[in-house]
Amino acid sequence: MKHNLLRRTVAEFIGTLFLLAAVVGSGIMGERLAAGNVALALLANTIATGTALIAIILAFGPISGAHLNPAVTLADAWTGGIPWRETPVYIAAQLAGGIAGVTLAHLMFGLSAVSASTHPRNGFAQLLSEFIATFGLLAVILGCARSRPSVVPVAVGAYITAAYWFTASTSFANPAVTIARSMTNTFAGIQPSDIAGFVAAQLAGALAATLLFQWLVPPPKPERTPSSLTHPL
Amino acid sequence: MKHNLLRRTVAEFIGTLFLLAAVVGSGIMGERLAAGNVALALLANTIATGTALIAIILAFGPISGAHLNPAVTLADAWTGGIPWRETPVYIAAQLAGGIAGVTLAHLMFGLSAVSASTHPRNGFAQLLSEFIATFGLLAVILGCARSRPSVVPVAVGAYITAAYWFTASTSFANPAVTIARSMTNTFAGIQPSDIAGFVAAQLAGALAATLLFQWLVPPPKPERTPSSLTHPL
Amino acid sequence: MKHNLLRRTVAEFIGTLFLLAAVVGSGIMGERLAAGNVALALLANTIATGTALIAIILAFGPISGAHLNPAVTLADAWTGGIPWRETPVYIAAQLAGGIAGVTLAHLMFGLSAVSASTHPRNGFAQLLSEFIATFGLLAVILGCARSRPSVVPVAVGAYITAAYWFTASTSFANPAVTIARSMTNTFAGIQPSDIAGFVAAQLAGALAATLLFQWLVPPPKPERTPSSLTHPL
Amino acid sequence: MKHNLLRRTVAEFIGTLFLLAAVVGSGIMGERLAAGNVALALLANTIATGTALIAIILAFGPISGAHLNPAVTLADAWTGGIPWRETPVYIAAQLAGGIAGVTLAHLMFGLSAVSASTHPRNGFAQLLSEFIATFGLLAVILGCARSRPSVVPVAVGAYITAAYWFTASTSFANPAVTIARSMTNTFAGIQPSDIAGFVAAQLAGALAATLLFQWLVPPPKPERTPSSLTHPL
Repeated sequence: MKHNLLRRTVAEFIGTLFLLAAVVGSGIMGERLAAGNVALALLANTIATGTALIAIILAFGPISGAHLNPAVTLADAWTGGIPWRETPVYIAAQLAGGIAGVTLAHLMFGLSAVSASTHPRNGFAQLLSEFIATFGLLAVILGCARSRPSVVPVAVGAYITAAYWFTASTSFANPAVTIARSMTNTFAGIQPSDIAGFVAAQLAGALAATLLFQWLVPPPKPERTPSSLTHPL
Repeated sequence: MKHNLLRRTVAEFIGTLFLLAAVVGSGIMGERLAAGNVALALLANTIATGTALIAIILAFGPISGAHLNPAVTLADAWTGGIPWRETPVYIAAQLAGGIAGVTLAHLMFGLSAVSASTHPRNGFAQLLSEFIATFGLLAVILGCARSRPSVVPVAVGAYITAAYWFTASTSFANPAVTIARSMTNTFAGIQPSDIAGFVAAQLAGALAATLLFQWLVPPPKPERTPSSLTHPL
Repeated sequence: MKHNLLRRTVAEFIGTLFLLAAVVGSGIMGERLAAGNVALALLANTIATGTALIAIILAFGPISGAHLNPAVTLADAWTGGIPWRETPVYIAAQLAGGIAGVTLAHLMFGLSAVSASTHPRNGFAQLLSEFIATFGLLAVILGCARSRPSVVPVAVGAYITAAYWFTASTSFANPAVTIARSMTNTFAGIQPSDIAGFVAAQLAGALAATLLFQWLVPPPKPERTPSSLTHPL
Repeated sequence: MKHNLLRRTVAEFIGTLFLLAAVVGSGIMGERLAAGNVALALLANTIATGTALIAIILAFGPISGAHLNPAVTLADAWTGGIPWRETPVYIAAQLAGGIAGVTLAHLMFGLSAVSASTHPRNGFAQLLSEFIATFGLLAVILGCARSRPSVVPVAVGAYITAAYWFTASTSFANPAVTIARSMTNTFAGIQPSDIAGFVAAQLAGALAATLLFQWLVPPPKPERTPSSLTHPL
């Protein structure tokens, strides 16, 4: 094993911390500066999130695969990437990193460490959006990972940039992100009672994409060692 | 054959579905949030479309070539890529995917499944725009495909990002996209009676670019197997 | 020679045509939609120009080097790239392509074919801006061309995107672009009497960068064949 | 040694000059055109800075490593890159280049050569922001440099694009940039009395990231020659 589990866990923690700091921090900055124009605030939030993803996955991908997302970790285990026994460790690191990232964003912007969101995000349109957002995210990762793993960072950054605008939910597409964003009563927040629906829709979307791509891109050669989904090296 | 026709057809369907969901969905979101500033709405629409194209072509290119566009499929067949007998299957998948994508965008934003557009797009300036938009798109694809196929996703995403702004029609450049966009009475729509002109201009532009590049970039070696235009592997 | 001179000349013509169509067309579109907000219009103009450059250089670079710019062609000849006897042909193609591109943009937006600009751009600050803009452009091309020619398209697109904002002149950095933009009385125009100063500043900037890089990056091996500056293959 | 120290010093000087010209110049242009909308001005400033970084690091990285930042130079020396005895030369070049870049931006926009900033940037939230901004920058560089040095230019450009928005300080993350920006009383300025706190926070962040990555990514093979952090060749 190239990197021991502790190192990879720390990489997932810090990577997810920076992802959430980027999502929440840029939402706060965007809203403060946009003088009430929500399109402009979301544009800033989008550009910051997409470019942060590229940088974070490039930096931490070589260490841990830079899943940053329990849905990605589960899909990776399902398709023969990381061992199942490691998935709880990865997911715990992502959840803890997400919450730490929200707290960090709050402290950088002079807010209290956490604040429960009151932003309602529910109903069929929102849940469908999260199903599609996560389906698409996994499709992009699985579509690139086997043939050209080095493009995964740009593909994911580009996809999320688009999905912020083409889904009605602004594409959370990540259970750790969803839980963390319930702890910020700012631009990027989601009220805690809406977490369950979002996560269920996300996991369903991830499962659907994984099943589809198992059929769509069958493993090319039996002698090939299973490798991490998003591991660019 | 690396991927059987069914798999490739499904890839074209899903890829075009996501393309149209991105185009139409981000148009709806942009218009809703931009508080009447059309430049801001189009900027959001542009960024979402360009980045969606990069992600979709990276993900589905290795499977089907990610044509997502009947004009590209016809040019690919013309230049010795996919066999002519497969072109109707590809085109049908693109048309069906496009319509499904519009419907999906509508459902994600709480609208009825389809709605006929009332957005007029016609006249010489619009048709010239579509001729040029599609000529340029094929020039970019054909210019990159032989020498550096791995850059096609970024080249196409970059080109369409630019063409949204430098053509008066916002660069549909794709018959499947045109037909699908007639079914949405939102920001991205085109009234059904204007489809024929757009498609004719697009096919003329694609043909002109294909003829030009057959002269401009002659096949380097006779023993080389013809390969798919945009297939990055 | 991989591509005969006629083919390369046509590539320079069409490449420069698309570059000017992108610069002028997106300026018109940006100004029409931005409701008087010049920052928003310039942002649209910037994004369209930067992404157009990436697409055009990727597509035409393998054929002609995609100079699109007399200053680049002269620097390439100076540093042992294309033969001096071909430079007038390249430059003529760039000038003709630029004018054709302006005309095309006008026709796509329903304007008359050409119109003399009344936009004054002169004085020390403007000329210094053009000197620096072109110095930087050549520095980027020369800095990348020897060690990693495949990154030239992205480097040039990124550089011009930045230079639109950090120079007071919005970075024409190209004599063919300057002459062509005198023929459009729209957002991107420059009045004909200011052409001479801009071109002189651009050529001085290009010469300074070329001399600097000849010292900064000496040719690594004497046996290496001189090759085109921006030729990514 | 591929490039002698004088050449590398000049590369650091010119690279940092262009970086500061981009940061300060685009701030002036953004503020002038944005009609009071700070989000729009910062968006222009962000896009110009991120793309300038990509272009500058691509162009000067092959010569000097394109550190452009004393914190990067110190981390590079610490991890066995450039020799310690060269660090004062690099840092002096960066400081001089930064000041020259501010002056150049002022002259391009018709302002006096320098002007002391009156923009206060201090307090816990600002200092925490700079610690995090620089920690993240070094994490991105160190995370990419060993495994895929060719992606460093894009990773750094993407990271800074994001960090402009997710830190409350707009992510200076660079002592040379901080000192230079004290000399411009425009959008990007920082009052001189706040320099010390920013620089201290930046160096602490850089040190923390360097220590973390020494543990996180241990050197793979003892026989490998230490090489420059960001040297893409």
